[in-house]
Amino acid sequence: MININEAINIIIENTENISFEQRDIINCNNRVLAEDIYSNDNLPPFNKSAMDGYAIKSQDTVGVHKDNKIGLEVKKTIKAGDWCEDILKNGEAFKIMTGAPLPIGADSVIKIEKTAEENNIVYIESRVKQWENVIRLGEEIKTLDIALKKGALIRTSEIGLLASLGYTNITVYKSPVVALIITGDELVDIESKLEKGKIRNTNEYTLTSLIENSGAEIISFGTVTDNRSLILEKVKLALGKADIIITSGGVSVGEYDFIEDILIEVGANIKFNSVAIKPGKPITFATYDKKLIFGLPGNPLSVITTFEEFVKPAIRKIMGKRKLFSNEFDVRLSNDFKSKLGRRDFVYVHLEKENGFYHAHKIGTQSSNQLMNLTKSNGLIIIPEERETAREGEILNGRFIFE
Amino acid sequence: MININEAINIIIENTENISFEQRDIINCNNRVLAEDIYSNDNLPPFNKSAMDGYAIKSQDTVGVHKDNKIGLEVKKTIKAGDWCEDILKNGEAFKIMTGAPLPIGADSVIKIEKTAEENNIVYIESRVKQWENVIRLGEEIKTLDIALKKGALIRTSEIGLLASLGYTNITVYKSPVVALIITGDELVDIESKLEKGKIRNTNEYTLTSLIENSGAEIISFGTVTDNRSLILEKVKLALGKADIIITSGGVSVGEYDFIEDILIEVGANIKFNSVAIKPGKPITFATYDKKLIFGLPGNPLSVITTFEEFVKPAIRKIMGKRKLFSNEFDVRLSNDFKSKLGRRDFVYVHLEKENGFYHAHKIGTQSSNQLMNLTKSNGLIIIPEERETAREGEILNGRFIFE
Repeated sequence: MININEAINIIIENTENISFEQRDIINCNNRVLAEDIYSNDNLPPFNKSAMDGYAIKSQDTVGVHKDNKIGLEVKKTIKAGDWCEDILKNGEAFKIMTGAPLPIGADSVIKIEKTAEENNIVYIESRVKQWENVIRLGEEIKTLDIALKKGALIRTSEIGLLASLGYTNITVYKSPVVALIITGDELVDIESKLEKGKIRNTNEYTLTSLIENSGAEIISFGTVTDNRSLILEKVKLALGKADIIITSGGVSVGEYDFIEDILIEVGANIKFNSVAIKPGKPITFATYDKKLIFGLPGNPLSVITTFEEFVKPAIRKIMGKRKLFSNEFDVRLSNDFKSKLGRRDFVYVHLEKENGFYHAHKIGTQSSNQLMNLTKSNGLIIIPEERETAREGEILNGRFIFE
Repeated sequence: MININEAINIIIENTENISFEQRDIINCNNRVLAEDIYSNDNLPPFNKSAMDGYAIKSQDTVGVHKDNKIGLEVKKTIKAGDWCEDILKNGEAFKIMTGAPLPIGADSVIKIEKTAEENNIVYIESRVKQWENVIRLGEEIKTLDIALKKGALIRTSEIGLLASLGYTNITVYKSPVVALIITGDELVDIESKLEKGKIRNTNEYTLTSLIENSGAEIISFGTVTDNRSLILEKVKLALGKADIIITSGGVSVGEYDFIEDILIEVGANIKFNSVAIKPGKPITFATYDKKLIFGLPGNPLSVITTFEEFVKPAIRKIMGKRKLFSNEFDVRLSNDFKSKLGRRDFVYVHLEKENGFYHAHKIGTQSSNQLMNLTKSNGLIIIPEERETAREGEILNGRFIFE
């Protein structure tokens, strides 16, 4: 049995990016850029009006104030999308709309609200500074400047910037394909009535949900009975098709817990088979070439916890993400909680902000075979290895779940 | 011009759930339950062993300790998925695997690690309490108990619980269909070279990304030139097909800003056309029957900000969500920031946790026409209406963006 920090280090050390792919920018949300992006244009590509108003020469307003107005001749109107070849001369103004290009000769825009127009003359009674209300050519980015660096997370802002630069598709890190093998003689399909001794195949659904939320692709191999050769066959099949293989069940010390033996038989390299955490202690991690194999426990709460702690950071690393772990923050306990020396406990709680500070409220039993209480939870607290109990009023690390 | 709190109240008051739909549970992630869910079974459906060990009668271990061992005859093995009709008698033990049903007569399980078996006799040297290591029938939930209430957010835990109860599909609130109309003579497709006076159609991409992330469905009507009758036609078409109509551009005071006039012409009820915020002041909100119409500005940063502040809470309410707004938290300023009395400023910053507290670092110009700086940001700070400046070291409300 190893501690969780060792376990996570082993997983991260053995995890590599798979490869790259080209994708339409609109399908790149939450992906990571695998190339540097340079600008092929100046943005904006011209001196652009930031206001509805009049494009003028700022020098025409030198000395202008309330008691010393000037009138400029309005020669024409430029709207957004137009291109004006006419040159603005001293004493002239071109009416201009937000987003329209400034004519040659103009170096500023006066807001329409600060002017009055009558008989083609616009009256101005305040000084305008050079480049006032003008977004200068190349102010956002210049031709050949770097726009986004390899490793950038693609969000709405990056999709927008790429669109404005004319990039329709980009190279991003590939998402891993995750194969799912659920083992257990006791499992029946979820639409089935419960025959004697049977329970429904919950883990296929929770794991599918978790894998999809993580951004990975899923291939489900469905359920397999606790039959060594059947499981072996599925594991071999999965190794041919996926980058990550997840099994659920069959990792305890019982007579029908075959997973570790099977992994040894296929030639996988077992890295650990037990971690000092609750829930989820019996978890096996192995590698096979560059593929990762996670033997998760069979209890629903253990499955969710071990996926989040061990599998998700690996998926994130494969996808090129810099942030592998969720944000933790200080949480004050509203109840007493029990733990065990030498073990890290993940206790699901209801987190509520009270006077600017998050408080953790007990939601009841943390029995690893049930999900009912987890539906009342929105977060967890982490009781560290060196603690046997945690008391009301104490502060521990916590985080939100399913975010 | 109204303030942002009034604006949000008006939007929320005018927003209703559309209707319900049946969906497969695996496609219900992040949806809201529109029915109460009751259990048709006891979970677990039998007294279940929580350990690999031996099912016994606890009374057989009364008085047992290290110096007073007992031996029980091992009659058979029950594995997960088995159903055993044999009755356990005093002096007997049935070997039992995790997840297997207890035989009639047994009321406890002793862990295999605490026993020694030899010649079909299992030796026990400690007292076992009644129901020790047993998950009782109905402990998680009993037949006809309520499992999930209408209004519950469906996450991995809820999908798992529903699967364990045999629900393959459920009734959830429908997501709204959002129609997108982007206006502007200056816009060209993103794959186009930039002709004189033109910029690329960035907003269609950012809005598509924001709408998809919010869980709504999208119908894009593409770009329309600043032609009153063409825009009118598209708005009418959109009103026939969508629950929410978003336009971008055409809401300022310029001569080609038609949106408000067009909305009046189709018979929409204009609720407001200007909000005291930055970026995004010229935003129009109208209703038409139960449909919502948002006339967003044309500048990319204003589009993103107004979508997040005004459209997203409406989408969330339609989807039945209780939490309409993002979590805010205290942020300490690492720089000075300027604002304007009477206006609420959303300033994009880089948030970084230092000594357990988030600090806001300036990322540069907040010019609403550009996204380059937004790509350097992971959050925002909110400068309230009553402040003209905010100084280094002060604490304001902040939040993460694109979460």
